[in-house]
Amino acid sequence: MTYCVGMRLDRGLVFMADTRTNAGIDDISSVKKITTWERPGERVITLMSAGNLATTQSVISLLDERSKAPKDRNPSILAAPSMFQVVTIIGETLREVVRTRAGEGPKASSPFSATLIVGGQIEGSEPRLFKIYPEGNFIEATDDAPFFQSGETKYGRPILVRGFDPAKSFEEAIRLLMVSFDSTIRANLAVAPPLDLVVHERGTFRIGAERRFEVDDPYFRTICNQWSHALRAAVDGLPKFSF
Amino acid sequence: MTYCVGMRLDRGLVFMADTRTNAGIDDISSVKKITTWERPGERVITLMSAGNLATTQSVISLLDERSKAPKDRNPSILAAPSMFQVVTIIGETLREVVRTRAGEGPKASSPFSATLIVGGQIEGSEPRLFKIYPEGNFIEATDDAPFFQSGETKYGRPILVRGFDPAKSFEEAIRLLMVSFDSTIRANLAVAPPLDLVVHERGTFRIGAERRFEVDDPYFRTICNQWSHALRAAVDGLPKFSF
Repeated sequence: MTYCVGMRLDRGLVFMADTRTNAGIDDISSVKKITTWERPGERVITLMSAGNLATTQSVISLLDERSKAPKDRNPSILAAPSMFQVVTIIGETLREVVRTRAGEGPKASSPFSATLIVGGQIEGSEPRLFKIYPEGNFIEATDDAPFFQSGETKYGRPILVRGFDPAKSFEEAIRLLMVSFDSTIRANLAVAPPLDLVVHERGTFRIGAERRFEVDDPYFRTICNQWSHALRAAVDGLPKFSF
Repeated sequence: MTYCVGMRLDRGLVFMADTRTNAGIDDISSVKKITTWERPGERVITLMSAGNLATTQSVISLLDERSKAPKDRNPSILAAPSMFQVVTIIGETLREVVRTRAGEGPKASSPFSATLIVGGQIEGSEPRLFKIYPEGNFIEATDDAPFFQSGETKYGRPILVRGFDPAKSFEEAIRLLMVSFDSTIRANLAVAPPLDLVVHERGTFRIGAERRFEVDDPYFRTICNQWSHALRAAVDGLPKFSF
């Protein structure tokens, strides 16, 4: 499992992902699930992956090769003129990788599928955020649905639904994300720190902040410890029931 | 889907269940998922069902016929000497119903399975709470795991994990349940009010309180309205993140 959240705020985009990967409960490991490409001052693109690790690593390697390669290697997400076209390329790459694995040879016990959250900004356009399905199609974040989750989405969703506000600062959004991740980590062993964070500030066209929260990160620990009390106090502050 | 929670408190047992049942998103209905049997002063048993409605109704009808019938209809949950034996009878009945449907004739698109939460107290013993699987086997609530959920368990779990305390009064436990149900109802259309509540006070061997919360119930509405604010305030009260 995995837990990733991408948010579209007024000030830009925020991405957070856990790092646990597992092939069975007795075979766990840590892997970075956030990848970023940038042409400083012109575009910045961040991708978060959930699902089959071989699939998502293949997708990223293919995108990487094309973006680093000479002119004849096309299409490249660093050359596409819009985020829509960037996401179309990523979706087609994902679809191709899944199709190749699923269509031939031995069958795996788990599917080869993956779900991606991709966001970024290209000069001349607004920041945009997308969720790409294993079939290669995708949806875009809107004012009504301004954030995307992937992986183990349920435990951490109520707090996001209640607490999200596009006017939030990056610092406030990160605090909210910490709470959502903490709820998920406590409930599902297949989601675990370290947590990776990437921020794109609107109009900068570069990675604004990149940070890894280790399991003993002081801020992460503070949130974990204080949230229990805060939540209990919030319940206790509600009107009492009486028969 | 469904959402049921059974709690074992120091003061007794509390059961809450939603009432939505659906056979597809275009075929929804309301049904009571809590059934109670009592022999006032001697035993009280409450059952909550999640899963295939035909299966759970069959189980309850079979248990009912046996409990109301003459001596030769055995085994009866009103005659069994312990909650362990009551739950064994219920588990066998469930297993039998699932097996009969699954084993012959046309196959359904959805499985015939169901999960039950059963609790009660018989004179001379402590209140006990169990969760019964479709295979007929079951687990019992312990000090480490003092409540059971069934159906759509994830959205409402973090608040229960954080807020549960066996020393709570029934009124406090019901407030906590309301919050857990509200989080679930907001996230999953297949969970919906009215909500049914049953309380067994320890040592009374009768139904202590029974209540239905309609969608416009003033207490339910108060919790729904105030919880958003309380939750946001709780997040805002946490230490701010800074880069």
